[in-house]
Amino acid sequence: MTKDVIAAIKERRSIRRFKPDPIPEATIGRLLEAACAAPSAGNVEPWFFYCIYKDDLKEALARAALGQKFVAWAPVVIVVCADPERAATAYGERGRNLYCLQDTAAAVTNLMLAATGYGLGTCWVGAFSEAEVSRVLSLPPNLRPVAIIPVGYPDQTPAPRPRRSLEEVVRVIR
Amino acid sequence: MTKDVIAAIKERRSIRRFKPDPIPEATIGRLLEAACAAPSAGNVEPWFFYCIYKDDLKEALARAALGQKFVAWAPVVIVVCADPERAATAYGERGRNLYCLQDTAAAVTNLMLAATGYGLGTCWVGAFSEAEVSRVLSLPPNLRPVAIIPVGYPDQTPAPRPRRSLEEVVRVIR
Repeated sequence: MTKDVIAAIKERRSIRRFKPDPIPEATIGRLLEAACAAPSAGNVEPWFFYCIYKDDLKEALARAALGQKFVAWAPVVIVVCADPERAATAYGERGRNLYCLQDTAAAVTNLMLAATGYGLGTCWVGAFSEAEVSRVLSLPPNLRPVAIIPVGYPDQTPAPRPRRSLEEVVRVIR
Repeated sequence: MTKDVIAAIKERRSIRRFKPDPIPEATIGRLLEAACAAPSAGNVEPWFFYCIYKDDLKEALARAALGQKFVAWAPVVIVVCADPERAATAYGERGRNLYCLQDTAAAVTNLMLAATGYGLGTCWVGAFSEAEVSRVLSLPPNLRPVAIIPVGYPDQTPAPRPRRSLEEVVRVIR
Protein backbone atom coordinates (compact mmCIF):
# COMPACT_ATOMS: atom_id res chain seq x y z
CA MET A 1 0.00 0.00 0.00
CA THR A 2 1.18 3.47 -0.79
CA LYS A 3 -1.34 6.30 -0.36
CA ASP A 4 -4.99 6.90 -1.10
CA VAL A 5 -5.46 8.22 -4.64
CA ILE A 6 -7.43 11.30 -3.59
CA ALA A 7 -4.80 12.06 -0.94
CA ALA A 8 -2.02 11.66 -3.53
CA ILE A 9 -3.81 14.04 -5.91
CA LYS A 10 -4.31 16.63 -3.15
CA GLU A 11 -0.88 16.28 -1.53
CA ARG A 12 1.21 16.41 -4.71
CA ARG A 13 3.36 19.52 -4.76
CA SER A 14 6.07 20.92 -6.99
CA ILE A 15 9.22 19.98 -5.10
CA ARG A 16 12.43 21.86 -5.86
CA ARG A 17 14.60 20.85 -2.89
CA PHE A 18 15.58 17.23 -2.46
CA LYS A 19 17.36 15.15 0.16
CA PRO A 20 20.47 13.44 -1.19
CA ASP A 21 19.09 9.98 -0.29
CA PRO A 22 19.15 7.61 -3.23
CA ILE A 23 15.86 6.18 -4.51
CA PRO A 24 15.55 2.37 -4.51
CA GLU A 25 15.92 1.00 -8.04
CA ALA A 26 12.66 -0.94 -7.63
CA THR A 27 10.78 2.25 -6.78
CA ILE A 28 11.98 3.95 -9.97
CA GLY A 29 10.69 0.88 -11.81
CA ARG A 30 7.28 1.30 -10.15
CA LEU A 31 7.16 4.96 -11.21
CA LEU A 32 7.90 4.04 -14.81
CA GLU A 33 5.32 1.25 -14.76
CA ALA A 34 2.79 3.78 -13.47
CA ALA A 35 3.73 6.15 -16.31
CA CYS A 36 3.25 3.39 -18.87
CA ALA A 37 -0.16 2.49 -17.41
CA ALA A 38 -1.46 5.88 -18.56
CA PRO A 39 -4.30 6.01 -21.05
CA SER A 40 -3.03 6.23 -24.62
CA ALA A 41 -5.12 6.89 -27.73
CA GLY A 42 -5.43 3.54 -29.50
CA ASN A 43 -2.85 2.18 -27.05
CA VAL A 44 -0.16 3.54 -29.36
CA GLU A 45 2.10 4.45 -26.38
CA PRO A 46 3.90 7.30 -28.16
CA TRP A 47 6.41 7.77 -25.35
CA PHE A 48 9.96 7.15 -24.21
CA PHE A 49 11.66 7.81 -20.88
CA TYR A 50 15.27 8.69 -20.08
CA CYS A 51 16.38 8.16 -16.47
CA ILE A 52 19.41 10.29 -15.81
CA TYR A 53 21.70 9.64 -12.84
CA LYS A 54 24.88 11.09 -14.36
CA ASP A 55 25.89 14.38 -12.73
CA ASP A 56 27.21 16.19 -15.78
CA LEU A 57 24.09 15.30 -17.78
CA LYS A 58 21.81 16.49 -14.97
CA GLU A 59 23.74 19.75 -14.91
CA ALA A 60 23.45 20.11 -18.68
CA LEU A 61 19.69 19.49 -18.39
CA ALA A 62 19.45 22.20 -15.72
CA ARG A 63 21.17 24.61 -18.12
CA ALA A 64 18.83 23.52 -20.96
CA ALA A 65 15.97 24.25 -18.56
CA LEU A 66 16.91 27.93 -18.59
CA GLY A 67 19.18 27.56 -15.58
CA GLN A 68 16.71 25.94 -13.17
CA LYS A 69 19.50 24.58 -11.01
CA PHE A 70 17.30 22.41 -8.79
CA VAL A 71 16.92 20.04 -11.74
CA ALA A 72 20.52 18.94 -11.18
CA TRP A 73 20.01 18.55 -7.42
CA ALA A 74 17.61 15.62 -7.69
CA PRO A 75 19.10 12.12 -7.42
CA VAL A 76 17.28 11.11 -10.60
CA VAL A 77 15.97 13.19 -13.49
CA ILE A 78 13.42 11.61 -15.81
CA VAL A 79 13.12 13.16 -19.25
CA VAL A 80 9.80 12.26 -20.87
CA CYS A 81 9.73 12.22 -24.66
CA ALA A 82 6.88 12.06 -27.15
CA ASP A 83 7.16 10.12 -30.39
CA PRO A 84 4.95 12.26 -32.67
CA GLU A 85 5.37 10.12 -35.79
CA ARG A 86 4.38 6.98 -33.90
CA ALA A 87 1.08 8.67 -33.07
CA ALA A 88 0.81 10.20 -36.55
CA THR A 89 1.10 6.77 -38.15
CA ALA A 90 -2.14 5.82 -36.43
CA TYR A 91 -3.92 9.18 -36.32
CA GLY A 92 -2.31 11.69 -38.71
CA GLU A 93 -2.13 15.33 -37.64
CA ARG A 94 -4.28 14.78 -34.56
CA GLY A 95 -1.86 12.10 -33.39
CA ARG A 96 1.18 14.25 -34.12
CA ASN A 97 0.02 17.49 -32.48
CA LEU A 98 -2.49 16.40 -29.87
CA TYR A 99 -2.62 12.73 -28.82
CA CYS A 100 1.14 12.28 -28.36
CA LEU A 101 1.20 15.36 -26.12
CA GLN A 102 -1.85 14.23 -24.15
CA ASP A 103 -0.61 10.66 -23.76
CA THR A 104 2.80 11.77 -22.49
CA ALA A 105 1.17 14.31 -20.15
CA ALA A 106 -1.02 11.52 -18.75
CA ALA A 107 2.12 9.41 -18.28
CA VAL A 108 3.83 12.27 -16.44
CA THR A 109 0.78 12.73 -14.21
CA ASN A 110 0.67 9.03 -13.34
CA LEU A 111 4.39 9.11 -12.59
CA MET A 112 4.06 12.14 -10.32
CA LEU A 113 1.10 10.68 -8.42
CA ALA A 114 2.87 7.35 -7.99
CA ALA A 115 5.91 9.24 -6.71
CA THR A 116 3.70 11.04 -4.19
CA GLY A 117 2.40 7.63 -3.15
CA TYR A 118 5.94 6.50 -2.39
CA GLY A 119 6.76 9.68 -0.46
CA LEU A 120 8.83 11.09 -3.31
CA GLY A 121 8.76 14.63 -4.65
CA THR A 122 8.71 15.74 -8.27
CA CYS A 123 8.37 18.90 -10.28
CA TRP A 124 6.99 19.20 -13.82
CA VAL A 125 9.61 21.29 -15.62
CA GLY A 126 8.24 22.46 -18.95
CA ALA A 127 10.40 25.53 -19.60
CA PHE A 128 13.43 24.28 -21.51
CA SER A 129 15.02 24.36 -24.92
CA GLU A 130 13.88 21.23 -26.71
CA ALA A 131 16.81 21.49 -29.11
CA GLU A 132 19.27 21.74 -26.23
CA VAL A 133 17.78 18.75 -24.36
CA SER A 134 17.86 16.73 -27.59
CA ARG A 135 21.52 17.61 -28.01
CA VAL A 136 22.45 16.84 -24.39
CA LEU A 137 20.84 13.39 -24.52
CA SER A 138 21.64 12.72 -28.19
CA LEU A 139 17.97 11.98 -28.74
CA PRO A 140 17.05 10.14 -31.92
CA PRO A 141 15.22 12.44 -34.36
CA ASN A 142 11.85 10.76 -33.72
CA LEU A 143 11.75 11.82 -30.06
CA ARG A 144 10.59 15.21 -28.79
CA PRO A 145 11.35 16.02 -25.15
CA VAL A 146 8.13 17.27 -23.54
CA ALA A 147 8.85 17.26 -19.79
CA ILE A 148 11.78 17.12 -17.40
CA ILE A 149 10.90 15.55 -14.05
CA PRO A 150 13.46 15.68 -11.23
CA VAL A 151 12.64 13.02 -8.62
CA GLY A 152 13.83 12.75 -5.04
CA TYR A 153 12.81 12.70 -1.39
CA PRO A 154 11.41 16.17 -0.59
CA ASP A 155 13.45 18.52 1.55
CA GLN A 156 10.70 21.13 1.69
CA THR A 157 6.94 21.14 2.39
CA PRO A 158 5.37 23.80 0.17
CA ALA A 159 1.83 24.99 0.88
CA PRO A 160 -0.79 24.12 -1.74
CA ARG A 161 -1.02 26.62 -4.59
CA PRO A 162 -4.32 28.47 -4.87
CA ARG A 163 -6.84 27.25 -7.42
CA ARG A 164 -9.81 29.00 -8.97
CA SER A 165 -13.09 27.82 -7.49
CA LEU A 166 -15.22 25.24 -9.28
CA GLU A 167 -17.78 28.01 -9.87
CA GLU A 168 -15.21 29.75 -12.07
CA VAL A 169 -14.16 26.77 -14.17
CA VAL A 170 -17.21 24.47 -14.35
CA ARG A 171 -20.52 24.80 -16.15
CA VAL A 172 -23.25 22.21 -15.52
CA ILE A 173 -25.93 21.64 -18.16
CA ARG A 174 -28.95 19.59 -17.07
CA MET B 1 -10.64 6.59 1.86
CA THR B 2 -11.05 5.64 -1.75
CA LYS B 3 -8.36 3.41 -3.25
CA ASP B 4 -4.58 3.17 -3.16
CA VAL B 5 -3.00 5.42 -5.81
CA ILE B 6 -0.93 2.62 -7.39
CA ALA B 7 -4.02 0.39 -7.47
CA ALA B 8 -6.06 3.18 -9.08
CA ILE B 9 -3.36 3.69 -11.74
CA LYS B 10 -3.22 -0.04 -12.47
CA GLU B 11 -6.97 -0.71 -12.31
CA ARG B 12 -8.11 2.22 -14.48
CA ARG B 13 -9.68 0.93 -17.69
CA SER B 14 -11.47 2.48 -20.63
CA ILE B 15 -15.11 1.88 -19.76
CA ARG B 16 -17.68 2.01 -22.54
CA ARG B 17 -20.70 0.36 -20.87
CA PHE B 18 -22.27 2.03 -17.88
CA LYS B 19 -24.97 1.17 -15.35
CA PRO B 20 -27.82 3.68 -15.38
CA ASP B 21 -27.29 4.50 -11.69
CA PRO B 22 -26.90 8.23 -11.10
CA ILE B 23 -23.65 9.55 -9.64
CA PRO B 24 -23.93 11.48 -6.36
CA GLU B 25 -23.56 15.22 -6.97
CA ALA B 26 -20.86 15.40 -4.28
CA THR B 27 -18.81 12.76 -6.07
CA ILE B 28 -18.86 14.72 -9.32
CA GLY B 29 -17.63 17.67 -7.28
CA ARG B 30 -14.74 15.55 -5.94
CA LEU B 31 -13.80 14.52 -9.48
CA LEU B 32 -13.70 18.14 -10.62
CA GLU B 33 -11.67 19.15 -7.56
CA ALA B 34 -9.21 16.38 -8.41
CA ALA B 35 -9.01 17.67 -11.99
CA CYS B 36 -8.29 21.19 -10.77
CA ALA B 37 -5.56 19.94 -8.43
CA ALA B 38 -3.52 18.93 -11.48
CA PRO B 39 -0.14 20.53 -12.02
CA SER B 40 -0.37 23.62 -14.23
CA ALA B 41 2.53 25.58 -15.72
CA GLY B 42 2.81 28.76 -13.66
CA ASN B 43 -0.52 27.78 -12.05
CA VAL B 44 -2.27 29.44 -14.97
CA GLU B 45 -5.06 26.79 -14.92
CA PRO B 46 -5.88 27.07 -18.65
CA TRP B 47 -8.95 24.83 -18.36
CA PHE B 48 -12.73 24.72 -18.24
CA PHE B 49 -15.13 21.83 -17.66
CA TYR B 50 -18.64 21.24 -18.96
CA CYS B 51 -20.73 18.64 -17.09
CA ILE B 52 -23.47 17.44 -19.38
CA TYR B 53 -26.53 15.61 -18.02
CA LYS B 54 -28.95 16.62 -20.79
CA ASP B 55 -29.82 13.68 -23.06
CA ASP B 56 -30.02 15.51 -26.38
CA LEU B 57 -26.66 17.18 -25.76
CA LYS B 58 -25.05 13.85 -24.83
CA GLU B 59 -26.42 12.40 -28.06
CA ALA B 60 -25.09 15.35 -30.06
CA LEU B 61 -21.68 14.86 -28.40
CA ALA B 62 -21.74 11.17 -29.36
CA ARG B 63 -22.38 12.19 -32.99
CA ALA B 64 -19.60 14.79 -32.79
CA ALA B 65 -17.37 11.95 -31.51
CA LEU B 66 -17.70 10.22 -34.87
CA GLY B 67 -20.72 8.21 -33.72
CA GLN B 68 -19.24 6.67 -30.57
CA LYS B 69 -22.68 5.98 -29.12
CA PHE B 70 -21.48 4.91 -25.69
CA VAL B 71 -20.71 8.57 -24.99
CA ALA B 72 -24.44 9.20 -24.74
CA TRP B 73 -25.01 6.18 -22.51
CA ALA B 74 -23.09 7.57 -19.53
CA PRO B 75 -25.10 9.38 -16.86
CA VAL B 76 -22.68 12.32 -17.04
CA VAL B 77 -20.36 13.46 -19.81
CA ILE B 78 -17.55 15.85 -18.90
CA VAL B 79 -16.13 17.90 -21.76
CA VAL B 80 -12.68 19.22 -20.90
CA CYS B 81 -11.64 22.43 -22.64
CA ALA B 82 -8.28 24.17 -22.93
CA ASP B 83 -7.98 27.95 -22.92
CA PRO B 84 -4.97 28.42 -25.20
CA GLU B 85 -4.86 32.22 -25.01
CA ARG B 86 -4.88 32.12 -21.21
CA ALA B 87 -1.69 30.04 -21.38
CA ALA B 88 -0.30 32.13 -24.25
CA THR B 89 -0.67 35.31 -22.21
CA ALA B 90 1.82 33.89 -19.74
CA TYR B 91 3.99 31.77 -22.04
CA GLY B 92 3.46 32.70 -25.72
CA GLU B 93 3.55 29.94 -28.31
CA ARG B 94 4.72 27.32 -25.81
CA GLY B 95 1.69 28.07 -23.65
CA ARG B 96 -0.70 28.03 -26.60
CA ASN B 97 0.46 24.79 -28.24
CA LEU B 98 2.02 22.79 -25.41
CA TYR B 99 1.33 23.82 -21.81
CA CYS B 100 -2.45 24.23 -22.19
CA LEU B 101 -2.64 20.75 -23.73
CA GLN B 102 -0.42 19.22 -21.06
CA ASP B 103 -2.24 20.93 -18.18
CA THR B 104 -5.66 19.80 -19.42
CA ALA B 105 -4.35 16.27 -20.01
CA ALA B 106 -3.04 16.22 -16.44
CA ALA B 107 -6.47 17.39 -15.25
CA VAL B 108 -8.16 14.60 -17.25
CA THR B 109 -5.77 12.04 -15.77
CA ASN B 110 -6.45 13.22 -12.22
CA LEU B 111 -10.18 13.10 -12.91
CA MET B 112 -10.00 9.56 -14.29
CA LEU B 113 -7.90 8.28 -11.39
CA ALA B 114 -10.19 9.93 -8.84
CA ALA B 115 -13.15 8.32 -10.64
CA THR B 116 -11.43 4.93 -10.38
CA GLY B 117 -10.98 5.62 -6.67
CA TYR B 118 -14.73 6.11 -6.30
CA GLY B 119 -15.54 2.96 -8.26
CA LEU B 120 -16.54 4.94 -11.35
CA GLY B 121 -15.59 4.20 -14.93
CA THR B 122 -14.43 6.68 -17.56
CA CYS B 123 -13.10 6.66 -21.10
CA TRP B 124 -10.83 9.27 -22.66
CA VAL B 125 -12.52 10.09 -25.94
CA GLY B 126 -10.17 12.08 -28.16
CA ALA B 127 -11.59 11.34 -31.60
CA PHE B 128 -14.18 14.06 -32.26
CA SER B 129 -14.78 17.12 -34.36
CA GLU B 130 -13.69 20.08 -32.27
CA ALA B 131 -15.83 22.39 -34.40
CA GLU B 132 -18.87 20.22 -33.88
CA VAL B 133 -18.40 19.98 -30.10
CA SER B 134 -17.93 23.76 -29.96
CA ARG B 135 -21.19 24.20 -31.86
CA VAL B 136 -23.13 21.70 -29.74
CA LEU B 137 -22.07 23.35 -26.47
CA SER B 138 -21.98 26.91 -27.86
CA LEU B 139 -18.44 27.21 -26.53
CA PRO B 140 -17.01 30.71 -26.25
CA PRO B 141 -14.29 31.30 -28.84
CA ASN B 142 -11.48 31.13 -26.27
CA LEU B 143 -12.20 27.48 -25.39
CA ARG B 144 -10.91 24.48 -27.33
CA PRO B 145 -12.48 21.10 -26.50
CA VAL B 146 -9.64 18.61 -25.93
CA ALA B 147 -11.31 15.58 -24.33
CA ILE B 148 -14.76 14.08 -23.86
CA ILE B 149 -15.03 11.95 -20.72
CA PRO B 150 -18.19 9.88 -20.16
CA VAL B 151 -18.50 8.96 -16.47
CA GLY B 152 -20.62 6.26 -14.87
CA TYR B 153 -20.59 3.07 -12.84
CA PRO B 154 -18.95 0.39 -15.00
CA ASP B 155 -21.10 -2.33 -16.50
CA GLN B 156 -18.12 -4.22 -17.90
CA THR B 157 -14.73 -5.37 -16.60
CA PRO B 158 -12.26 -5.13 -19.47
CA ALA B 159 -8.90 -6.87 -19.18
CA PRO B 160 -5.83 -4.61 -19.02
CA ARG B 161 -4.49 -3.55 -22.42
CA PRO B 162 -1.00 -4.78 -23.23
CA ARG B 163 1.87 -2.38 -22.75
CA ARG B 164 5.38 -2.42 -24.18
CA SER B 165 7.96 -3.55 -21.63
CA LEU B 166 10.07 -1.03 -19.74
CA GLU B 167 13.08 -2.37 -21.70
CA GLU B 168 11.46 -1.03 -24.86
CA VAL B 169 10.57 2.45 -23.62
CA VAL B 170 13.18 3.35 -20.99
CA ARG B 171 16.85 4.20 -21.23
CA VAL B 172 18.90 4.61 -18.05
CA ILE B 173 22.05 6.72 -18.11
CA ARG B 174 24.35 6.40 -15.09
